[in-house]
Amino acid sequence: MDPKVAEHAVIALAQELISRMSVTPEDAGCQQVLSERLRALGFTCESMVFADTTNLWARRGDHGPVFCFAGHTDVVPAGSEHAWRFPPFTPTLHEGMLYGRGAADMKGSLAAMIVATERFVERFPQHRGSIAFLITSDEEGPFINGTPKVVETLEARNEKITWCVVGEPSSTTHVGDVVKNGRRGSLSGELRVFGIQGHVAYPHLAKNPVHQAAPALAVLADTLWDHGNDFFPPTSFQISNVQAGTGAGNVIPGEFHVSFNFRYSTETSADDLKQRVCAILDAHELDYAIDWKLNGEPFLTAEGELVQATVAAVRHHCGSAPHLSTAGGTSDGRFIAPTGAEVIELGPVNATIHKVDECVSMNDLIQLADIYESLMEQLLC
Amino acid sequence: MDPKVAEHAVIALAQELISRMSVTPEDAGCQQVLSERLRALGFTCESMVFADTTNLWARRGDHGPVFCFAGHTDVVPAGSEHAWRFPPFTPTLHEGMLYGRGAADMKGSLAAMIVATERFVERFPQHRGSIAFLITSDEEGPFINGTPKVVETLEARNEKITWCVVGEPSSTTHVGDVVKNGRRGSLSGELRVFGIQGHVAYPHLAKNPVHQAAPALAVLADTLWDHGNDFFPPTSFQISNVQAGTGAGNVIPGEFHVSFNFRYSTETSADDLKQRVCAILDAHELDYAIDWKLNGEPFLTAEGELVQATVAAVRHHCGSAPHLSTAGGTSDGRFIAPTGAEVIELGPVNATIHKVDECVSMNDLIQLADIYESLMEQLLC
Ligand SMILES: [Zn+2]
Ligand SMILES: [Zn+2]
Repeated sequence: MDPKVAEHAVIALAQELISRMSVTPEDAGCQQVLSERLRALGFTCESMVFADTTNLWARRGDHGPVFCFAGHTDVVPAGSEHAWRFPPFTPTLHEGMLYGRGAADMKGSLAAMIVATERFVERFPQHRGSIAFLITSDEEGPFINGTPKVVETLEARNEKITWCVVGEPSSTTHVGDVVKNGRRGSLSGELRVFGIQGHVAYPHLAKNPVHQAAPALAVLADTLWDHGNDFFPPTSFQISNVQAGTGAGNVIPGEFHVSFNFRYSTETSADDLKQRVCAILDAHELDYAIDWKLNGEPFLTAEGELVQATVAAVRHHCGSAPHLSTAGGTSDGRFIAPTGAEVIELGPVNATIHKVDECVSMNDLIQLADIYESLMEQLLC
Repeated sequence: MDPKVAEHAVIALAQELISRMSVTPEDAGCQQVLSERLRALGFTCESMVFADTTNLWARRGDHGPVFCFAGHTDVVPAGSEHAWRFPPFTPTLHEGMLYGRGAADMKGSLAAMIVATERFVERFPQHRGSIAFLITSDEEGPFINGTPKVVETLEARNEKITWCVVGEPSSTTHVGDVVKNGRRGSLSGELRVFGIQGHVAYPHLAKNPVHQAAPALAVLADTLWDHGNDFFPPTSFQISNVQAGTGAGNVIPGEFHVSFNFRYSTETSADDLKQRVCAILDAHELDYAIDWKLNGEPFLTAEGELVQATVAAVRHHCGSAPHLSTAGGTSDGRFIAPTGAEVIELGPVNATIHKVDECVSMNDLIQLADIYESLMEQLLC
């Protein structure tokens, strides 16, 4: 192994963070480590604790524009440690990879952000505007006391983020091949279809809600909700859970529960989807109720200075421009974008995240720090 | 209350049986009570114990034709006793009704059978043919060690039943208004539809088995399987249980489980139904497996001496002919009919069976004994 790689400042800091068992909503002192490094650079660090969640808002500079790194110190549980090749909270270097829970999602990115900032501040101590860090310990959890509360606090004092780089692992095969410049909206529904319970031998006295609902579900599953657009794939409807029946084989169920989720593009809206679902259910004359939950509106940073700088930085350091994508799951970017910030997500390869043997290429992390540094240079100099 | 009713031999015996807590598969000594009464009339009583189930085969006479009463001493659980107006295993007479678990299903019928037999044997000690009782303690349970095993034993020694009267509560508003002269078949299926599990954000990597199956279920629910015939209503398909999903809202399920049941007429067959279900699933290109369970073939006693005698007896004692029906749940008649016996089911009103405050009209039970006695007189004299 190349000792220059293994001993690189980014790898050293990533190892220090991985060795802390910060399973959601625990921070396990990670933000303390980050704060110390940032204070040494002249950052003002605010710890914002909401209920069980620890957040960090750090800023260097009093003026705009504000370039902000966003991320999280929490990780998903490791599951059975025996299933891991190396202990999940003992960072291990092996064949060019750094192994450990959070290596890719996203302690590696945090380390790259810090080292990039250190180098940038050393080179440009008088940079224009501000550099900021918005770090939470609740990204993998119920997203209540993390980024949303910090954003609320900033909004209340009219503190604005101009450009935000979220360190989520956006890449597919090597760092920078994919950059997320938006995310689909996520709308969930809990549908209950009401029938009349009865004995299978007396179907005329009952009303089977599964029979009633099946054609409606077939239509919902077959509906083309929109065609998507240049930035978003078509809106997707998926049933995640269904349940009906008492377990007895001779009882017609009285209720049918169906959980479903939309991932939707900017070609539609949550209200539109709700109306169209209800219209389909009504057309099938169902007796039903739906509890809706809007998990996140879609957001899009189609163009602008941040996207331009990102494309240029990736092209320079990786050799080709990134693919801009809005696919995949939600991220905390959805809470930051509505404040008016330009938001992109750029981090390492996500192939092993939330799995056993999570790992990240050390060279990718070092390259990621170069890209991050380049972004600050393009936007704050 | 009329003391002649309250002190009637049928009511006294029904009370004695109800006071025994014979929840399936317990007999709690009920068959002992019946055996003693039958032995006193010259019956030969055989106790046939199979595993946890106690059965009684009693017979008076060595020759055919064999007139057989069939029934069960077991009852379904009482549930919460607090919900009962009177304690479920303390038989209580109130406003013309006898209350208690099993009053209608079917200890009242057993009492009527015994008293009718006592009166008939006293009047016609030299009756032709034989009188028999086939009693089990496992009618409400898994029907493995009850009537099927007794029938098997009788078949093995070529002992045949000519006419069988099952004491199941067949009546709707007063005793004798409905007589069952057959039952639909019951065929169950456990369907598993296989998809590919995945994340709702990446539907192109998954295959949602609920989406795949919904149109097929809609067709199954909407299919007219047959038109029934003079004796059977059309075959009915009912989904009893469905389940899919891990509980997580962001996971596309990998499997979809659907339990369903056919109650089918003599216009179709179990094999035909299986083929037609598979053809529908195949037409929707589903990847699936089905476990089938044939709970009982349909049977029908469309006409013959037993039906004639029953119609005459009911008309004589109740004032009008019974409605002959094959509707409703299965009964042990389905195990006896295939031996070649004519089978009918005639018992009290079933409005409260398997419910709290199960009860039966005392006058109905007394009238039931008269009807049973009339049947023996018509067929064995
Ligand atoms: Zn993450
Ligand atoms: Zn019964």
